[in-house]
Amino acid sequence: MKKHIYIYSPSSAVRDKAGFKRGVKRLADMGYDVEIDEAALSAHQRFAGDDDTRLAAIHRAAASGADVALISRGGYGLTRILPGINYKAVARAIDQGTHFVGLSDFTAFQCAVLAKTGAVTWAGPAVLGDFGSEASPDEIMAACFDDLVTGQGEGTGWRLPKNAINTIAADADKPGATAQFSLNNAVLWGGNLAVLSSLVGTPYLPAVKGGVLFLEDVGEHPYRIERMLTQLLHAGVLAQQKAVVFGQFTEYKLAKHDKGFKLNSVLAWLQGKIKARVLTGLPFGHVATKVVLPIGCKTRLVVENNDAFLLWGHR
Amino acid sequence: MKKHIYIYSPSSAVRDKAGFKRGVKRLADMGYDVEIDEAALSAHQRFAGDDDTRLAAIHRAAASGADVALISRGGYGLTRILPGINYKAVARAIDQGTHFVGLSDFTAFQCAVLAKTGAVTWAGPAVLGDFGSEASPDEIMAACFDDLVTGQGEGTGWRLPKNAINTIAADADKPGATAQFSLNNAVLWGGNLAVLSSLVGTPYLPAVKGGVLFLEDVGEHPYRIERMLTQLLHAGVLAQQKAVVFGQFTEYKLAKHDKGFKLNSVLAWLQGKIKARVLTGLPFGHVATKVVLPIGCKTRLVVENNDAFLLWGHR
Repeated sequence: MKKHIYIYSPSSAVRDKAGFKRGVKRLADMGYDVEIDEAALSAHQRFAGDDDTRLAAIHRAAASGADVALISRGGYGLTRILPGINYKAVARAIDQGTHFVGLSDFTAFQCAVLAKTGAVTWAGPAVLGDFGSEASPDEIMAACFDDLVTGQGEGTGWRLPKNAINTIAADADKPGATAQFSLNNAVLWGGNLAVLSSLVGTPYLPAVKGGVLFLEDVGEHPYRIERMLTQLLHAGVLAQQKAVVFGQFTEYKLAKHDKGFKLNSVLAWLQGKIKARVLTGLPFGHVATKVVLPIGCKTRLVVENNDAFLLWGHR
Repeated sequence: MKKHIYIYSPSSAVRDKAGFKRGVKRLADMGYDVEIDEAALSAHQRFAGDDDTRLAAIHRAAASGADVALISRGGYGLTRILPGINYKAVARAIDQGTHFVGLSDFTAFQCAVLAKTGAVTWAGPAVLGDFGSEASPDEIMAACFDDLVTGQGEGTGWRLPKNAINTIAADADKPGATAQFSLNNAVLWGGNLAVLSSLVGTPYLPAVKGGVLFLEDVGEHPYRIERMLTQLLHAGVLAQQKAVVFGQFTEYKLAKHDKGFKLNSVLAWLQGKIKARVLTGLPFGHVATKVVLPIGCKTRLVVENNDAFLLWGHR
């Protein structure tokens, strides 16, 4: 039986209709039974329909019985409707097998679902930008997505970039020895840094202790990244994590005024402020090659020499 | 006796040395005794010296005995050093008559001082951009500053722009009657929205109840302004205010994708979410014409027809 994918729009309006169609066709070509929410192409101002329309779309996705509820795109629009979401209905859908998949603005939904219910959602692709890209969809992204849909995903791994942060982290236990460590039973959570930090102090930020927090962002200057990390630091969020894993931070421009201040300066500063392991290079963010990651799931983080692995086994 | 102004740099490095000199000269020409902190022109990466240097500068400003401790400029750099500030020393200086004046990144200092000690600081100009501008300094800004330095300031007033928000607010009490209301004994606080919202959930956001919150920002798209306001909303901060007063939001660009979504859409949405009065047009922000405002001071907010007044009387 074909796997059922339900596409809906909880955030910004879909303007790139051609990209949307392309994405839908590619998903169909991959062998999925694709269902499109009635309001997927709605528009109100910059949103995919007004607040009630987008809330109804989320609730239809939850009631769809699909294997995957996939967002059309991110953008902006979820934070303002968080109080209107029926979290019990979403958790019930997840319990019955629906995987909610998305990224970016969708981080708000994913954090809120975790905070309110403890249910697991998936950081992963969207229709636009991923399946609907002009170039062929990234093969690793598509394979990770298919593993998720067919229930075969058990983890992901990546090569740690050679930089000061990973060297420090890898060597922390045994200087001179083979760099390795592992963390067990750590709840994986995170997503877009700007969205996640905008939930600090609200009921929609999950209180994860002993977790592995992963972060990504797009178009944010390192000083803004640092300011957002500082909020997480001063709010006590980072002190409660066993590891902070940086995904891809893209599309920002350094300025002449920076004079050597850059993303690595921010990471080094952060590592000096927290005991948690700081790692980089996770293939997730506003980039073509992205893995899928279970938000709210207990995971094992393993570092062996220059390789890192996040393992969540059979679910 | 000449009033004593102490200039220091707690945030970004001063790159515009000519503007800095111009500002210092203008302040001297206005009749002030201007003292310049030894690290005012220091630079480390994008900062005005490393963290210890900037902390020491703040503490020298507090120990200066000056009538006004004035920042050279805003930028970025205060949030990360908030844990290192000697708040007792700052409060003692304020108690002994030093007015700490600044804006933008300085909002972090001002909120932290209020949260930790209850002491009053002043939202107002900086050397660069205000006194050091290429054009003559704004006369209203300079007059408000001089009123502050000489202890003559008792309040400020502005004409409410004609828009839906102010009309709703002004008419709320008596439809058809002369629009007027006043709020008494409300603590005035606020500043830069991006900086203030980055303090939510940390020990550096003051827990002001029944207050008048004023906000301004520069270069932030209305969707980001809304996301930041949503954080204040969901964190319960806005529900505890009697009024939210919008200053100047400048230098952002609307996009084709916005399709009618604009700053006024955000304000109308906000007014629908909170009982507090929402007002606009406060002459404060990243603009030449800015008033000075006491952060942490009990004030009276009065609206009469199309005019608004914030009154703090003799201090």
